[in-house]
Parts: sequence; C-alpha cells; structure tokens
Amino acid sequence: MNSPKPYDPTGIQYYSIPSFLFNTGRSLPVRVAYRSFNSTLPRAVCVPTSEHSHINTTNNFTSGALKDYHVVVVAMLGNGESSSPSNTVTFPQPLYQDCVNASHELFTKHLNINELEAVIGFGMGGQQAYYWMCMRPDFVKSAVVICGSARTSPFNYTLLDGTAAALRSSAGYSIEKARQQGIELTAGLHGYGKVTCAWSTSSAWFKKELFRTVLGLETISEFIEMYDSAFKGWNAADLLALVKMWQLGDVGALRDDGSYVKALEDITGRVLVIASRRDYYFSPEESAIELNYLKLGTLEILETIWGHAAGTGACKEDSEQIDRMIATFLGYN
Amino acid sequence: MNSPKPYDPTGIQYYSIPSFLFNTGRSLPVRVAYRSFNSTLPRAVCVPTSEHSHINTTNNFTSGALKDYHVVVVAMLGNGESSSPSNTVTFPQPLYQDCVNASHELFTKHLNINELEAVIGFGMGGQQAYYWMCMRPDFVKSAVVICGSARTSPFNYTLLDGTAAALRSSAGYSIEKARQQGIELTAGLHGYGKVTCAWSTSSAWFKKELFRTVLGLETISEFIEMYDSAFKGWNAADLLALVKMWQLGDVGALRDDGSYVKALEDITGRVLVIASRRDYYFSPEESAIELNYLKLGTLEILETIWGHAAGTGACKEDSEQIDRMIATFLGYN
Repeated sequence: MNSPKPYDPTGIQYYSIPSFLFNTGRSLPVRVAYRSFNSTLPRAVCVPTSEHSHINTTNNFTSGALKDYHVVVVAMLGNGESSSPSNTVTFPQPLYQDCVNASHELFTKHLNINELEAVIGFGMGGQQAYYWMCMRPDFVKSAVVICGSARTSPFNYTLLDGTAAALRSSAGYSIEKARQQGIELTAGLHGYGKVTCAWSTSSAWFKKELFRTVLGLETISEFIEMYDSAFKGWNAADLLALVKMWQLGDVGALRDDGSYVKALEDITGRVLVIASRRDYYFSPEESAIELNYLKLGTLEILETIWGHAAGTGACKEDSEQIDRMIATFLGYN
Repeated sequence: MNSPKPYDPTGIQYYSIPSFLFNTGRSLPVRVAYRSFNSTLPRAVCVPTSEHSHINTTNNFTSGALKDYHVVVVAMLGNGESSSPSNTVTFPQPLYQDCVNASHELFTKHLNINELEAVIGFGMGGQQAYYWMCMRPDFVKSAVVICGSARTSPFNYTLLDGTAAALRSSAGYSIEKARQQGIELTAGLHGYGKVTCAWSTSSAWFKKELFRTVLGLETISEFIEMYDSAFKGWNAADLLALVKMWQLGDVGALRDDGSYVKALEDITGRVLVIASRRDYYFSPEESAIELNYLKLGTLEILETIWGHAAGTGACKEDSEQIDRMIATFLGYN
C-alpha cells in the first residue's frame, strides 16, 4: 500500500556504468541505485524494486526470512532512483532485460557477487525475477515471484493502458509545456494515483471497509486522497516508462521464436510463485498456468482480500505469511 | 459495449420545462430528450439511458420483451441529449432525483402517461429504476434493474473517482483553456475511455480474448482503440456530471434519516434485479444484499464473462437471456 511518506535516501548508493548497452541497441551512461544490507554475509539475494516502490519502501525481508543473507535492493531503471526519464535527457524506454543486465554488472563488477541465492520480487519485481531465471541461469539459483507473472496478460495490459492514458492526456505530463503555461505539475499524477487506487486491493476489501478498521480513516474519499498523495513525489515520465516496461513484460521476448512456454520450460532453477487470491493485475489462475511449464515451480496462494497490495507489506498477516513462505523455500536451497 | 458509431438522432424529441426545480434548490429551464416507440399502445414502460448510452444506443427491448408496450427511452440529465453541462451554461450537478422528476413531468404533462408498467434500466439506468420505485410508488408498478444497484458501493465509488480524476486532470477538460492553448480537445476523453476499458467486461473475457473471436480484432491494442474511440463524441464535462451522479447514487438520500435499508424496505412494487457474475461495478453479492430488504424482489444472475457489458447488448446470448427474463417478469404484472 502506498502512503504519503517523504522520500528516504538512507543507505542508498549509486553505481555508474559509463557506457551501458540498452536492449534497443543504444549505449549511454547509466547509474544503478541500490542498498546493501548485511554486506559481509556470504550468501546474496537480490530484491528488485516494484512498480510503485523506491529502495526504502520495498519489502526487503531483512528482519525475517533474509536476516542471514546479504540483501541488495536494486532500483529498476525508470523508478527515479536509477537512471530514469526524470534524471536523464532522452532516456530510452527501459525493458526488464536492461534492469537485469545493469544489476548483473553491479553485482559482478562492483559488489563482487558471483552468485545469487535468489531474486525475490513483488509485482514488477516479480516479473524481473522471472527474467533473471531466464537470462542468468548460472548466476541465480532460485526466484520468488510475489504477485507477479512471466508475461503480462491482456487484461493487465488494458488496466495499465488506462493509467498510461490518464498520465499522457494530463495537463501535467508535458512538464516543460506545463511550466510555460502555468498548469499545476502534479495534475497528471493525481489521475494516475486515483485510477490505480481501486485496483490496489480488491472489491471485498472495499466492501469490508478496511480503510476504516485497518487504516483508521473515516471516509472512502480520505482513503483515495491518502493513496493518491503517495504519488506526489513521482515523475509522470518515470511512471510512464515503468508502465510501458510492465506492459511489454514477456519472457518469450528473450527468445528468437518468441515462445513464452519454451522460455518457462527452459528455466532450470527453483521458482516459488506467491499469488494473491484477488489480485487484479496478476491472477492466481494466470500463475497456475505458468506453473505448468516450470520444472521446479511451486505455487502458494494467499487467501486474502488485500489483492495485489498483499505483496506490498500493507497487511501484517499477509506479510508474515510471505516471510514464512520465503524462509521455508530458501531452507531447501 | 461501446463502439464508434456516428451520433444517431432518429426519432428523438425534446420536451421543454420552462422552470425546473433541481434537488439542490435551483430552478432553470431544462429540456428532456426522449424517443417514443409504439406510442399508441396503452401500457407504457420507461427505459432511461445508462452511463455511456445515448437514446438510440440504449437497449430498448422493443423487438422482444417490450414489443407490446409503449416504450419511452428518456435521456438522463447530463448525457448531452437532455440538458447537460455541454449545452447549458452553469448547469448544476444533476442527481437521480432530478432525472426522475424531469421524466415524470414529461410523462404526466406532455405524454399523458399516468402509470408506468415498469422502469427498465441498465447500469445508471438501473439505479434510476430503484429511485423511481422509491420516489413514485403510485406511478410505477415495477422495476427491472440490469447490472445496477440502489446504492453505489465504496469500490464502485473508487473506480469512478479514478475516471473522474483522469478527466479532470486532462489537458482537454478545460475546453476554453485548451482552445486558447491549442491542446487537442479530446485528450481527456481518451484517458476516460482507456481507463474504463478494462472494467467494461471481465478478466476472464480478456483471458479468452473475445476481442478476437467475437469482435474480430487482431490485437488488444485494437480493442482498446475501438472502445476508446466511442467516446470521441462525448463531452468531458457531461461525463464528469454523470460520474458524480453515479457516485452519489443512494436511495437512502431520499429519506430524512438517510437509511438505505428503510428506503428499500418501503418499496411496494415488484423489482427484478438482473446481475452479471463478473460485473466490477455492480457485483451480484451487492445485489443479493439489497434483495434482502425488498418485499417483492427477484434476483437473476447472468453466468457470463461479459461482466458489466452483458447489459449493454454487446453479447447476443446475454441480451436474449435478459429479454426472456424481462418478458417472464412482465407476464406476472
């Protein structure tokens, strides 16, 4: 769940790659933002950021399942911490391939990490975990995909297209233009936050009015405003880059034949997929289909009304369950 | 389902009310747009328009269940055909109460209709049908609520708030301002169409890719564009007025004590509620709760993956089933 906290730069470091080759063929300097926890421990785990998280708002499991690991939280390209439209002139559309390649360079050339016990990610972070398994089978032993998928479904694509349209048609999107015209710069971001608000949990969550009982708010409007205000610190062009990367998510794109099924079948490492019963973005039904193609896949389903947000850390019970699932899974490594 | 058809004015007439008293207390001249079918038949039925329909894109059942009735399709205030922000300077926010009162005046003072066999509406039209039952128990014998509710749920409210935010933050919304600045006027509408696109049917509909098999389109993008382009003829301020009316939908507002339950319990006429299994706006679960309070209520559920759009006429099988349900229901009158 998003909530309006001031940006927290604690512990964040930047690794610069002077000439990074993007998947599209363009090369340019990029920076990769990351934070290391317990860096002296021998076994390493990568936790990529998700669609709406920064490094310090990403669940890192360092006080639970990952307390005995060197955990590196890596910011996706496009999230405003690593290189992004908001901090780089004419930044190309990043893809998951680029996020994996840039992180791999950080690990091998800077952090002297030559093997990852696991990549553990939520949402877009979960999609990155699938990409890691396909792209670097000798480097990553396992993956935990929390509320994520190996391919973005048509329904998910359509949801995302709505959020992109809200941003693109907004008065605040064209920042330079808006500045010249004196239009409020955050106008588009309010469209984005409000459009995504209903999707964040589930209809059952709203029916039970957990914004009252759990969040202590009095009205639905207060909840919408709270959720929306978490995006005030975001940049519209960054969000658009992330949405596009998400829409293009498909491990089949890693193969010449484009086969998503074969890409999944070729994964040799162990994969734990944790789906949430009422997740509108990534349904358990989609996850079950993907599991059919995995050699060493396990599917766990969270029986919760928190939907996609179950993976954000917003619900204590769900978070504890996820932590236990990860601990059990890593125990087998 | 919306599709990009040119506006069809066939058979539409306008009734002018020189001084119409809005629920908010303001009086001004309004026009009510309507179309009469089989006006010589003795028994009359009112079919109000829905959130995204005009008079001639509203399912009127005149070739099926209502072939032996005088059917009057009445445009909601705010839909661009009746008085609306787009055709009236400083138009107040219309409420369902206003739609019912204006239609009642049309029936009694102009069309010489002194009793309605039924009000039959889809979506926002279904909400109007509930309001009719509460406001004019001596005038309306029964109601058919298709994919609608007596009160807008918090989840539905939040979905709607997203579409409103997309419109309000859009460059195209402030028409005069946009004209001065040369911004494309329909930009905001594209946000609206694309934001609502995923909600229109269901995740199962997208999973089965009915945009291919039923609509004959090749890609999901083509479907999104088709759906979106249906809004090119709409005005952003009109859509915002309708969204707000929908958000405020609550028959409890008709009572001093605000009790939605008592308002439902006081309904004396027969009500048929037709819900659609995967309707994101109006869930069968919500309908089942409302049914508990109705003296003479019947709930039928469409087992379809067309979600809310099942009530638009987009799916032949669903439309035929709805028609049969209405015919059976009216046979009892």
